[in-house]
Amino acid sequence: MDIWVLRLGHRRERDVRLTTHVALVARAFGCDGIILSGEKDDSVIKSVRKVVEKWGGPFKIKYERNWKKVIKRWSGKKVHLTMYGIPVDDEIKRIRRYKNILVIVGSEKVPSEVFELVDWNISITNQPHSEAAALAVFLDRYFSGKELRRKFEDAKVEIIPQKRGKKIIKLK
Amino acid sequence: MDIWVLRLGHRRERDVRLTTHVALVARAFGCDGIILSGEKDDSVIKSVRKVVEKWGGPFKIKYERNWKKVIKRWSGKKVHLTMYGIPVDDEIKRIRRYKNILVIVGSEKVPSEVFELVDWNISITNQPHSEAAALAVFLDRYFSGKELRRKFEDAKVEIIPQKRGKKIIKLK
Repeated sequence: MDIWVLRLGHRRERDVRLTTHVALVARAFGCDGIILSGEKDDSVIKSVRKVVEKWGGPFKIKYERNWKKVIKRWSGKKVHLTMYGIPVDDEIKRIRRYKNILVIVGSEKVPSEVFELVDWNISITNQPHSEAAALAVFLDRYFSGKELRRKFEDAKVEIIPQKRGKKIIKLK
Repeated sequence: MDIWVLRLGHRRERDVRLTTHVALVARAFGCDGIILSGEKDDSVIKSVRKVVEKWGGPFKIKYERNWKKVIKRWSGKKVHLTMYGIPVDDEIKRIRRYKNILVIVGSEKVPSEVFELVDWNISITNQPHSEAAALAVFLDRYFSGKELRRKFEDAKVEIIPQKRGKKIIKLK
């Protein structure tokens, strides 16, 4: 099983926190890693790696300028999340048959070529909202909700769910 | 039915796009409105109202400095989304019995009082990720996925889902 995210068109000025959120969603919802494209931004990579170090993995993050190469070389299926695509619930059973998936999320402007290079263009509602939210709901559908209880390897801390307040334990 | 979001601790410098995404998720996933707290920021309110004008509603957005008053005066149930809370799938059936809900999402630091003032502290994974994603998954659970096909009133445009490319039609 190999589920990766490709984040297109990162802009250092505007997207630092959103791209970080997209990467953290990818990790928390069970992906193996994320590839960032657009402007190179070591601060995002550093802060996501810090999260992995503290909260566990495995989860990889890397940068690749040439997003087209990433899509073309991907040996499995490719799913582009876009508000213009087919509703997720119409296609998720078919997508779930495949265990090797690249999930592509854009920022504001996505080159029209992307729509042609992928196996599916999938929408999480046909309304404008958030790539972080779209990715989370897509992965939640793909993993049938089981990812919400995933355990992470080599975590230094873990949360013990509480009705009130915060309980966080050190694991090593 | 009355489902609102309360966004705590907005900071003008850092949070413009994330708060906008949280508001757009609230709208796209079926809430009636959002109350922003923290620093007052007309640019977020303006851009969300522009989306409502174009893509339809009803969806309200307003600012309230005193978040405590908002929580205390809310006549229905209050759900705080936090990575420290009880997993959503353990409580969603109970929460779904109520039709009048304030969903509270914080930004980086949430005052500990919030944990005490609410009926539920609920986690969408116990991992760090994104309030936009947490809100989307919570609402998707609450509305049982039906919100993904919601139609909006008085929309000026609508997307017709496509396998490839973009199709957007003008409604008036």
